[in-house]
Amino acid sequence: MKVVSTPYEDIQIGARATYQRQITEGDVRAFATLSGDTNPLHLDDRFARTTPFDGRIVHGALLGAHLSAALATQLPGPGTVYLEERLRFRRPVRIGDTVTTELEVIEKREDKRFVRLKVEISTEAGGQVASGEALVMPPPERIELDLVDRA
Amino acid sequence: MKVVSTPYEDIQIGARATYQRQITEGDVRAFATLSGDTNPLHLDDRFARTTPFDGRIVHGALLGAHLSAALATQLPGPGTVYLEERLRFRRPVRIGDTVTTELEVIEKREDKRFVRLKVEISTEAGGQVASGEALVMPPPERIELDLVDRA
Repeated sequence: MKVVSTPYEDIQIGARATYQRQITEGDVRAFATLSGDTNPLHLDDRFARTTPFDGRIVHGALLGAHLSAALATQLPGPGTVYLEERLRFRRPVRIGDTVTTELEVIEKREDKRFVRLKVEISTEAGGQVASGEALVMPPPERIELDLVDRA
Repeated sequence: MKVVSTPYEDIQIGARATYQRQITEGDVRAFATLSGDTNPLHLDDRFARTTPFDGRIVHGALLGAHLSAALATQLPGPGTVYLEERLRFRRPVRIGDTVTTELEVIEKREDKRFVRLKVEISTEAGGQVASGEALVMPPPERIELDLVDRA
């Protein structure tokens, strides 16, 4: 599948994009390994069952990783430079949940050629699980990328 | 190595902690795989050399993963619930850089038992590369965790 970036000039206020991805057990393990975040809330069933969540939840920052992918593959797309993120984690996400990340362009800063997007993250089971904003610099030109599917 | 959490009651305003970790080629590939963020800025040397960065840079959200680990293993430590993150990516981080994440407690919210921390992220080469804030709920009790070193 090919993805194509939208350069700054072509981005419209109100433009929207969606990125959807299921979170697997392997994703949570890989995230723990690459970050060093071995919080038992995410990895240890027995411990997690003693908390108000009554079971393991997904790392909040893993939603930040999905957001990064949404920006880099959907809007503005490949070549985007990530400048600022703000995420509020509202409800737990479970392993196996399919996470939908929705973006909407809410501001274009002509002086610096930055774009601000509103971010809503949801799952079927939990409704809205996180929300926030992202500030990015879109690529100056249209970039086309071959998107490799998850192996 | 054992890590121990600091419950809400024992956390002091001004308390500080540091988390340090080198970012490897494998981390960047693993992050791309688990997130789906295949931005060529992070993965494609030839493309990245045509940008103002003159070479590949690390995903900004990977610094968010380090921040998550700093909160979960250092301060407040295991059992911490992540509520909100804000990160501004200021300078590029390169593969091979050792990233230092520094935390400082700046607010305790007695009503909700939340703690706010200031975040400064730096590398030896780049100085301050990111900064921001995190809001967390520390565990109600002291939790001890066996920290598994990176394999």
